[in-house]
Order: sequence, then structure tokens, then C-alpha cells
Amino acid sequence: MEVGRSIPRVDGADKVTGRAKYTDDLCPRPVLEAAVLHSTIANGWVKAMDISAAQALPGVVKVLTCFDVPDIQYPTPGHPWSVEKAHQDVADRKLLNRRVRIYGDDIAAVVAEDAITARRALKLIRVEYEEYPVLLEPEQAMAEGATPIHAEHPDNILAKMDLRTSISDDRFETVEQVLDSPDFFQFRGRYETQQVQHCHIENPVSFAWMEAGRIHVVTSTQIPHIVRRVIGQALGIGWGKIRVVKPYIGGGFGNKQEVLYEPLNAWLTTQVGGRCVRLDISREETFQNTRSRHPISFDVAAAVDRDGNLMARSCTAISNQGGYASHGHSIVANSVTGFRQLYLDRIGHHSTAYTVYTNRPAPGAMRGYGIPQCNFAVECMMEDIARAMELDPIAFRLKNLMPLGYVDPFNGITCHSTGLKECIQKGAQAIGWEELRARYKDQTGPVRRGVGMACFSYKTGVYPISLETASARLVLNQDGTVQLHLGATEIGQGGDTVFSQMAAEAIGIPTEDVHIVSFQDTDTAPFDTGAYASRQTYVTGKAIKKVGLEFRQKLLDYAAELFPEAKDLTISERFVTNGAGERLISLEELATTAFYSLEHSVHITAEGTNHCKENTFAFGCCFAEVEVDIPLGKVKVLRMINVHDSGRLINPALAAAQVHGGMSMGIGYALTEEMKFDPKTGRLLNGNLLDYKMPTSMDHPDLTALFVETDDPSGPFGNKALGEPPVIPVAPAIRNAVLNATGVAVNTLPLSPQKLVEEFTKGGLIGHV
Amino acid sequence: MEVGRSIPRVDGADKVTGRAKYTDDLCPRPVLEAAVLHSTIANGWVKAMDISAAQALPGVVKVLTCFDVPDIQYPTPGHPWSVEKAHQDVADRKLLNRRVRIYGDDIAAVVAEDAITARRALKLIRVEYEEYPVLLEPEQAMAEGATPIHAEHPDNILAKMDLRTSISDDRFETVEQVLDSPDFFQFRGRYETQQVQHCHIENPVSFAWMEAGRIHVVTSTQIPHIVRRVIGQALGIGWGKIRVVKPYIGGGFGNKQEVLYEPLNAWLTTQVGGRCVRLDISREETFQNTRSRHPISFDVAAAVDRDGNLMARSCTAISNQGGYASHGHSIVANSVTGFRQLYLDRIGHHSTAYTVYTNRPAPGAMRGYGIPQCNFAVECMMEDIARAMELDPIAFRLKNLMPLGYVDPFNGITCHSTGLKECIQKGAQAIGWEELRARYKDQTGPVRRGVGMACFSYKTGVYPISLETASARLVLNQDGTVQLHLGATEIGQGGDTVFSQMAAEAIGIPTEDVHIVSFQDTDTAPFDTGAYASRQTYVTGKAIKKVGLEFRQKLLDYAAELFPEAKDLTISERFVTNGAGERLISLEELATTAFYSLEHSVHITAEGTNHCKENTFAFGCCFAEVEVDIPLGKVKVLRMINVHDSGRLINPALAAAQVHGGMSMGIGYALTEEMKFDPKTGRLLNGNLLDYKMPTSMDHPDLTALFVETDDPSGPFGNKALGEPPVIPVAPAIRNAVLNATGVAVNTLPLSPQKLVEEFTKGGLIGHV
Repeated sequence: MEVGRSIPRVDGADKVTGRAKYTDDLCPRPVLEAAVLHSTIANGWVKAMDISAAQALPGVVKVLTCFDVPDIQYPTPGHPWSVEKAHQDVADRKLLNRRVRIYGDDIAAVVAEDAITARRALKLIRVEYEEYPVLLEPEQAMAEGATPIHAEHPDNILAKMDLRTSISDDRFETVEQVLDSPDFFQFRGRYETQQVQHCHIENPVSFAWMEAGRIHVVTSTQIPHIVRRVIGQALGIGWGKIRVVKPYIGGGFGNKQEVLYEPLNAWLTTQVGGRCVRLDISREETFQNTRSRHPISFDVAAAVDRDGNLMARSCTAISNQGGYASHGHSIVANSVTGFRQLYLDRIGHHSTAYTVYTNRPAPGAMRGYGIPQCNFAVECMMEDIARAMELDPIAFRLKNLMPLGYVDPFNGITCHSTGLKECIQKGAQAIGWEELRARYKDQTGPVRRGVGMACFSYKTGVYPISLETASARLVLNQDGTVQLHLGATEIGQGGDTVFSQMAAEAIGIPTEDVHIVSFQDTDTAPFDTGAYASRQTYVTGKAIKKVGLEFRQKLLDYAAELFPEAKDLTISERFVTNGAGERLISLEELATTAFYSLEHSVHITAEGTNHCKENTFAFGCCFAEVEVDIPLGKVKVLRMINVHDSGRLINPALAAAQVHGGMSMGIGYALTEEMKFDPKTGRLLNGNLLDYKMPTSMDHPDLTALFVETDDPSGPFGNKALGEPPVIPVAPAIRNAVLNATGVAVNTLPLSPQKLVEEFTKGGLIGHV
Repeated sequence: MEVGRSIPRVDGADKVTGRAKYTDDLCPRPVLEAAVLHSTIANGWVKAMDISAAQALPGVVKVLTCFDVPDIQYPTPGHPWSVEKAHQDVADRKLLNRRVRIYGDDIAAVVAEDAITARRALKLIRVEYEEYPVLLEPEQAMAEGATPIHAEHPDNILAKMDLRTSISDDRFETVEQVLDSPDFFQFRGRYETQQVQHCHIENPVSFAWMEAGRIHVVTSTQIPHIVRRVIGQALGIGWGKIRVVKPYIGGGFGNKQEVLYEPLNAWLTTQVGGRCVRLDISREETFQNTRSRHPISFDVAAAVDRDGNLMARSCTAISNQGGYASHGHSIVANSVTGFRQLYLDRIGHHSTAYTVYTNRPAPGAMRGYGIPQCNFAVECMMEDIARAMELDPIAFRLKNLMPLGYVDPFNGITCHSTGLKECIQKGAQAIGWEELRARYKDQTGPVRRGVGMACFSYKTGVYPISLETASARLVLNQDGTVQLHLGATEIGQGGDTVFSQMAAEAIGIPTEDVHIVSFQDTDTAPFDTGAYASRQTYVTGKAIKKVGLEFRQKLLDYAAELFPEAKDLTISERFVTNGAGERLISLEELATTAFYSLEHSVHITAEGTNHCKENTFAFGCCFAEVEVDIPLGKVKVLRMINVHDSGRLINPALAAAQVHGGMSMGIGYALTEEMKFDPKTGRLLNGNLLDYKMPTSMDHPDLTALFVETDDPSGPFGNKALGEPPVIPVAPAIRNAVLNATGVAVNTLPLSPQKLVEEFTKGGLIGHV
């Protein structure tokens, strides 16, 4: 069994020894360097630009402005293309923009012989603007008379959605009636999440050149095939005219599921005769000009019967989309859907969601895709209801959890397996829930402890909201080993390792005999939409299994030619054996024979597509124990345990590592991280790793990752989503632990000292000076 | 029709603008530099080596010697592997050799931080030798008491072959009886060819590093998949553990059909912790340590009836193999086979061939693979017989040519098509043969003119002597264009262009819509043995056609899903049309739909192997008009016309360019090129481009390439060999023209001034001083 083994990462040794090649390692030197000029206003127009001094600077090859770019609006998100126009992404930006929508918008670019010259030239460009008031919050942007940020949306609302389930109780006609009924306990609340950045180690970097009349781009991306397509759209050329290569990447977390600077880089090379141009985005630019996680506010209501059964809920989510549509309405739509799915409303549910343009840097995909936000809302709400009704918060949740066999009424996604109840029980036992809740009941004094938890559900991939398709290719080597060739990407998550294990399992060989082609080259790699939506082990995994079995059959068919008398051939321990378990031929000899036979030479390969029309839910929970220094507003996480049902684990050690990373990201989301803006200018105030506070190892307790393994019938190897989930329940678990410790319910993120001191003061724990 | 069009080379623009990437362009810098220590004796043993001073030099990373290398003997030639031990290549060298067999043998290597340090370190290595007498000629090596150069061959004869056809005339029992019969005109002669070098522009260069536990090698080669295999053999590791990448190369001509320094480079990286090591072979090393064309002597005899019908011939060829087996006996075997095949012996034929080890740099494959040598012998002989019998040399040849339908009695290769007679007639007419022969009949004076010609036949690929197998892969792009993915290599000959035309023809799309993946990466490229034996347009062409038709059918099948009512679907002008010629869908829309359809998403590709079990003969002839300055011994080529039957031409302009290159190479072979050795030490005396005389543009007349297009029924598109043939008939045509001008038959190559003055003196044209 290759699946289920905790083998070391196939890329591990290279990465720890510095041998692994990232985009910038592959860039030829010397190379032309590009730099981008960013606007110094957040809302307005570029009226005129004087580039004469910049163009005259020695070493400057070319200065290009928003007046020079192709008149093509293009979309940036890493979605599969849709053949239906209505389902295509919002095309709302050009390569460089005259209409400035964020502070720091891309308005010009310089290509120079070296990076210093390029940056010096930027300073020589004179810009004349027409300026409008800055709109940073949805309320400002939606207000009467606010300037439309995109002319197509005069009210600055990119999209609105209103979804009502059917009402299952004849006494009511609407959810609102249930939420007003005196028969039930009624709850209302508002929860808000903040804008945070992915903070991957490797900033976006790419280089591009022309060869054979085509544009070649090497870039740090999660989605090479989609990058190819979006460059084609942005430049208005055939997608086959573009080649994208993806080396190892230093993290993405969804930010590299968007096609940000590759189209500009591709266009720049076409403007300098095809010479190689490098575009290296700084950390500050990464904060300001790439993506982030949406701030979303949730106004929620719930009706609960006296036994603690959820009867109905409503949720109005407003998502701050910043200056560009990016993934459009998808993320807040996912958010309200996730809010609804985790718990069962016995009578009905009503969701409303808005996506609103503002002048903030545009948020996009970030690990969890709207679910960390809704999970904060729903898990705070569940805690607050339980507290108000004096129910045990775990028992209350268990009573209302999504059951096995649940089918979403809107998208049909089915709960094919669930271990969530067992996850909660396992986590509670591991942290000593009962004992801690009892111990922390009646604390006094400035430093108090508390324990909290939160659950989540998460779907696997994007079907049926969008297309799920993946291909794989296997190529036999002469020594009986195999090349595994995918369009799916290793982005630090361990994809290459689990893909190799899956291929080995399907073929029946050791994982050591599978050599994965890690870098995707869109000229030759099978097609796959890439790393996002926790889809690859599931969707690509199905393709690997399908093609692996076909490849295995080809090996056995060739063996059958050599041993026509043999029966029930199978592969075992690098040999083809017959039904009696006798070794007929080693795979090495079989391979060499197939290559070089004078009777029948064939180079055995298999390639195919799996169009995936299934989905399933992963589950899990987080338990956190905290110590709160009330006067300092300081939360110390003492212990944290995540318990996950991600189906069958392909590689338990890598799964645990993935959970650790997610928990760490969740701690930052809960306690310290927030992008802050100057309300006047719209300028990002803390767009660097000094002022933007990520948690360090000093802010972490030991992290514990536990699993409840289910065998999902829809998963290729019983597996389901694992990539994004670990981050989801951490912030509400910490918030609920702080509530448990202090009795103060903090309803906005992050739980920073500044905010906690305010909240504790309001709550009477800190006296007014 | 895409086949038959003279479209520009697909790599042309990049190559003339300097944008095309060759191996060294891709090497990361800084990089560890390797240098090889060469022996200063030609025959003997390394008894001891002191590397202490070299190892102590700052900047030296590692010094490795013939005492350190794996104890593995491996073969170097670019043949397909054979599963039968008896047919495997001779494994007669190690990575570095204690047993020194040529002057300059590889005995140690230094890896240093820079190239200057590496070369300085070489000078610090002290070597102690045991030395044997130097054996440069087969006669010396075969002499009684000569030191065995390889212990396995005490008589220094690597191989001997003796082939007799059956005798078709009851009056004789052996060919020798025919050759003694007074019934026939009897002829005896001896012809000798010299050792020459390929002199490709780009010397061998490679770099290698380790990643994911595997060895990666980028190298200038004709045969990336074979390089992979030989590295595996030389290092004793699984072939799947090696990845070879072949970029554009600056010529090969057969020298890069051998695996020369890649195994050493691969091993060196394993000895320095997998760091990237570059091994750049100098021009001098290329002359001394890589391959060359075999010097072969031919002792021939013929019996001819009075009507000019060849009755029988015999040929004893002795091939000087130098210090290493390289391609072993194959080349002289091919040589005597080619000698026999071109003309028909009505009673019988007897060939004997010897391959003899000497202490010369080892010859190997070079354009023509033994045929330029035998062609010099056979075409001189035919001329000399005609002259002696006072027959018209063209009429004499026409009477005896290989006929259509000829089947070789030993290997079964069949003449499926022949335009040789038409080639000869076309060439004779173009040069004005009759008129010139009459005009040059009775010349006197020091400067005389002459006209000569020679014919040849050449098989296409290596079947059935060896395996012929090739794979191809086609990948649909979203814009309806196609990636063509091959293991076959562009080596400057225009392969990429004609492969693209063939794929376009098979699919039914314009060649502009085929994007060839030029660089071979053995991790992902389909398998192909590579560029040699003029095989690729024939053998790989069959694979392209097979896979192209399968790919086309997949496109049509998908279209049929979309248009179930439509009939007789075909592809025309980038559209799928029905039987009535109506356009149903563009290929672009078809492709996009196939990728992104929510009903049936499939990424259309096709991949497959063609095991080629056919062969056929290409033909041609050369006509040369020369002016000979007798006192100076100087030959000036006034006009030269090659006429070729290579079947149907895929790209006539590229075919003509290929012929021009071959003619140029033939002029050097005929007149000026020869590797010269110090008989005492065995040291090569002219191993550089100053002392080794290649012809320059000043030595060339205008070259004319003409064709007689046949439609070979065995060729994928009616085509047959073209790569090597143009060089073959040039030297005998020039020699025969000199004979025509002066009456002096020069029977050894080259026709250098030194030699001609001697021959003219012997012939009485120059008086003794």
C-alpha cells in the first residue's frame, strides 16, 4: 500500500539543501528589468503623463504607460474558462490603467538594462491626475452620490445574491416570520472579519521572452495553464502562442491563483523585440497590488427551539471587493453557502450577499475562499446562542450538524461521509474539555484562562459551481520506473509526494519508482486547472487513478504478449506475477523489452482526462486553550488541537504538516493580522512584514493535529479536501476561548490588544481611568 | 498540402537573430567547471598519479582520477539498445582510463570553482606511465607481436566479416574463380580513404546537476534518449534516474551520435554533492578525443564481360578503428554492403571486412557511415574499368545499376523506388556532359580541365540491421493549434520544420498552427532513438503520420458529438466541415469546447509508437567540372551539380540546403582534409581549425542541387533518406574529373597539392628536376 504511508516529501531534500529551483533561480542574467509605476491617488484618472525624462535616462530601454496598452479589459482570477459568456469572469482591468481605483494602481512601466535604472526612471515620470473622494468601506461606496469606481456599476455593487430555501413548516411563509416567532429563542448578531494578506515567502516574480514567434513566461504561480489563457486574453492573441513554465514556488495560499503581473510581463517583452524581461514584485507591491482575504461583515439571525434545535437562520453578508473584481461574487457566495451548510435549519434559511467595489487593494482567493470569514460568524453565533440559552456548546452543535447524506438544495453537493461528530469528541477528549470548562468557570483576577472550540465543513473542489477537469500522463522508463506528468501543481503543500503515492498505488509499484515531473510547462504538461479549492488530491487524484490503472493494464497486456499461457497477471514487488504468485518477469526487463523488442517495440505511456462531476464535504474542528492578560489585552494560546476528517489520508505526516501550517495561519488571523489604511488617501499603512504583524514561533503553542479517517466513497482513494480546511476554525475557537475566559464576546477580528482593551473596558473588566 | 511546400525554417528567425538557445546559453553561472587531463603517451598504462598539489590549489573542489572511477566498462555509440547480449555495443572504456590507448586519453578530471583554476590544476598532476610502442596503422597493429590494445582482442582485430553471395553461374564455384576467368575483363585495384573530422561549429558541451536524487544533464547531442541510457550504463544506475535535455545544437554530423563526455559529466556531479558541473570540450579536445571518419582501405577486384556487364566483384576492406570500438564493426560492414549494393554482380560477390584497433583517436559515425569511403572505392573502380575497357563511364554505370525491386540477399532491404537513371541523365544534361567530355579530350599544357561523375545509393534508417522505433505526441491547444512533441531531434538539418509540415499534413491544418517542442527532455519527450542514419523523416515521419491521423480522428469524433446529425466530417481551412463542405465549427471553438465543456471536458492528445519494419534506398549522383594546375597540384572546382532521388520532398528549399551542405563537406573530403599524426608519439599534429584545412567559401563554386522526385511507397509521405547522401559522391566525382583532366588516377584521399604533385610526377606530367 503506497497510499497511507508517511513517506518523506519527494522534494524535501532539495528544498532543505537549497537545490530546488524557483523562478528567479532560472532567470538568465543579465536580463532586462521592469518596474511598475503606481498611482499616488486611490480614486480618479490619469489625465496626462510626461515620460520624456525617464525615456532619456541612459539604460532605459522603453517607458510604457496606460496610454500605450492594448484597449482590452481582461479578468484575472484563476477560474476555469467558461464557454458561456454569462459565467465568464469579470473583465475590469487593462494591463495598465488610466482609471485609478486603488492607491498604488499600475499606471506605467519601465524596462531598463538594470533594476536601479528602472526604479530611477520611475521617479522621473510626471503624472497629472483627476481625483475623486476615497471610498474604503462598502457603506461609503454604496452611499448615494458616491463616484462609480467602474462605470458598469453605478452603485458600486458588483453583484448581489438572495437565496431562500423552501420553508418546511406550514405555519410560516418566510424565514423572517420564523425569526420573529415568539415560539422560538431568537438571536441576532453582527460579526466582522478584517482584510489580511497571504504573506507567502516568495513574492510574485516572472520573466518573459519571445522565441519562435511565441511568448514564453516563467512564473511563480499555482495555475500555469490558466496563466497561459489569461495572458492570451489580455494581449488578444491565441492561447497557443503562449508558453508558461511553473517551477517550485515559495507559497501561494490563493494569491498565486490569480493572474496578476504575468500579462504585463508578457506584453513588455513584445514591446522590446522579444528580449527577456524580468518583473520582480516587491513585498510592498505584493501587499498593495496583489490580493488579500476579503473583509466581510455578517448580520445574522437565528431561531432555536427550546431543545436547542436550529429552526431558521438568516445572514446578510457584505464583502468589500476593493478596486477590482478579482474572483467577483464567488467568494461571498461561497461564504454564505458555507454559513448555511454546516448546520441544519429545520424550517428554512435566507442568505443575502453583496460584493461591493471600494478603493481598497482588491481581495481575492485566500486559503478558505470565504469560509474562514463565515466560519467566524457561524461559530461565534453558535457559541453565543449556546451561552444565551445556557446549552452546552458542543452538545448544541452536535444536535444541529450537517448529517450524512445531506444534499445541498441549491448545488446538490452531497455529504458522502462525515466524521465530524467523532472529530469533536476526539478533540474534546484530547484537550480535556469537560475538566477545563469546569475549572475555568469562575475566575477572577487580571489573568484568566479559557477553552473554546469551533467546527467547520468544507467542500472539495468547485463542482458543480464550476468545471472540474484534470489530465494525467504516465511514461514508462527503461528501468521499470515511471514518469508522472501532470498539470497539477506542487505549491509547497506536498502535492508532488501524494500524487506520486497515488500513481504508485494505482500501478502497483513503490512510490520510489515514480519520478514526478514537478515543473509544469504548458507546452507539454497535461492540462489541469491547478492548485486551488483543495481540489487536486481529489480531482487530479481521480485522473491519476484512472490513467494509472490504464497504464497498469498496458504493462500487463505487454506481459501477456510475452507469456501467452500465463493467467491472472498482476504486479507485485516490481515483478509481473501470475495467478499462482510466480514471478514471470521484472518490470525492468518488461520495460526494456517493450522499448527494444525487435518483434514489438512500444513506448508505453498513458494519458487521459478525468472530467470530475462529484464533490464531497471535509470536516473538522479546532480546540484552543488560552490565557488572557486582561489589562494588557494580550491573548496567549496555550494549547491548540485541530481534528480533521479529510477522508482517507494519502500521507499522514504530510497531512499533519498541512494542518500545522493552517493552524499557524489561523492564529495570525485571530490575533494580530490586519491591513490598515489611511482613510483620507486610501494608502496602505502597514504593507510590509515589519508593520504587518504575523505571528512568530514565539506566539505559537505546540500544535496538535489529529485525524478521524473516513473512507469517502466519492474520493479516488477515499480522500477529500485537506489543503485549506486547517485554517478555518482557528479564529472562532480562540475567540470562543477568550469569551470562556473573560465573558466578553469580541465580534470582530483580529483580537488585537488594542481592541481587547477596548472590549474589556466596555465589558467592565478594566476600570475607566 | 503542407508537405511539399518550401516554407521557411520554423527555427530560422531565432537562429539568425541569436535568440535560439544552445546548451551553453542555458548553463547557470557561476557554475563548477570541469577539465580533463589527457595522457601524453598513446599506448600504455598509468602506473601512478600524484594529485596532491592539484587538490591543494585554492579553488579546486575535487580531483578525480582513473583510479577513482567505477569499475564499469561501457559502450559509447548511439545505437538503439539491444535486448540480445550478442548485439550489444562493445563496452571497452571506463569513465577515465588507466589503460591508455590514444595520445590524449582521458586519465583524470578536475572540478574547480572556475575554468582557469581547473586548467591550472591539471598542470599540477604528476603521472607515471608504462609505455608501449605506438600503433597507428592496421598493418602495425595486426603484425605479429604487436601489443594488444584491448586484452580481449590479442590480435587487435575487433571483428572480421566474410560474406559471399550464392554463385548464379554453374561454371564457377567461387567468386575468385570468376575473378580469375579469362572469359572476362579482369580488374584489380586499391583505394584508400583518410581520417577526417566532423568540425561542427559547436564543440561538445554539457552541464549536469542532481535534483530529487536524480542526475540532470543538459547537452549538445543528436540522441538525448540514448545519452540517458549510456549514462545509466556507465554509472551503473537505473536509466530512469537520469534526465537528459537537448537544446538547439550547433551541428553534429554523427559525432554527437555518440555518448562521449556526458557520462563523465554526470559522474562528476555525483562526486561534488550534486552541485552543477559544466564540462566544455575545446576544439583541440574535440579533434583528439571525440570521433572522426574511419580511414578504410579497399582492395577490390572485378570481372566484366565484353558488353560491360559486371560479373563478379570482391572487396577486402580494412578499417582503422583507433583506440576504442565506438560503433564497432558496423561502419565497415555498412561500407562493404554499400560497395556491393549499388551495382549488380551477375554471378557473385565476395566481401571481407576487418575492424582493427590502433592507437589513433577512435573514428565513429560521420555523415554517410562508411558509404563515402566505399563510394570512393566503387566509383573510382567503375571509372577505371570504363577507362580501361574504353566504355562510356555513364553508359557502363547505367548498365549495371541496382534495379527497381532489388532485394539485398543478406538483409532483405528492397529497392521500392528508384530515380537514379533519371538523376544521372538530368545531371549529365545540366553539366553538358557530352560536350565537355569531347572538349577535354586532348588537352596539353600545365592547366587542364576535366569533368567527372559518381553515383551512390543509400538506405534509409537502420532496419533490419537494428531496431527502428519512434514515438510522437500531439497536444491540442485551446486556440485550435497543436503542440508537436517528439524525441526526434533538430540538429540543424531542418528536422523541426519538416516534422511540423508532416504533422500539419496528417491533421489537415496549416503548418503555422503546429508548434513544435524543439528541445527534448527525456523526462517527458516521447521516445525516439534520435538523429542518425538519415532516419528521422522516414521513421519518425511514420510515427508523426500515424499519431497525426489518430489525433485528427479524435478531433472529428468530438465534433461528431457536437453535431450528431452531420456526416462525412473533415477538416478544412481551420474548420470542421460536413460532406457538403459546410463549416460546422472552427477548430478554435471545437478546442475550447472540448477543454471547458460542462458536459464532456477532454484534453485531446494523441501519442503512439511506430515500430518501423521497412527500409528503402535513396539515390543520387554528383557531376564535377574541375581545373587542375598540374605544377601546383592545385584542383579548382569550377562547377558542381548534385542530383538526388530522395523520394518526395517534404520541403524542397530545405532539401536543397541540405544538399549544398553535403557538397561542401564532400569538397573538403576530396581535396584538403586529413588528420595527421606524429608516427613516433601518435600525437595528432593538426587538431585545430588553423592547421586542419576545411574548404572556405573561396574554395567553392556555385553549388547546384537538383532532384528527381519519386514517390516511395514505403515512405510516410513518399519520402526517403536525404540527410547524409549529399556528401557521398562528391570525392569520387572530383577524383574522376581530375583523371579526365590529366589522365592520372589518384587512388587515395585527399587530392592535396602535395599528393597530386607526387602523382603527376609519377605519371610523367611533371618532369624530374
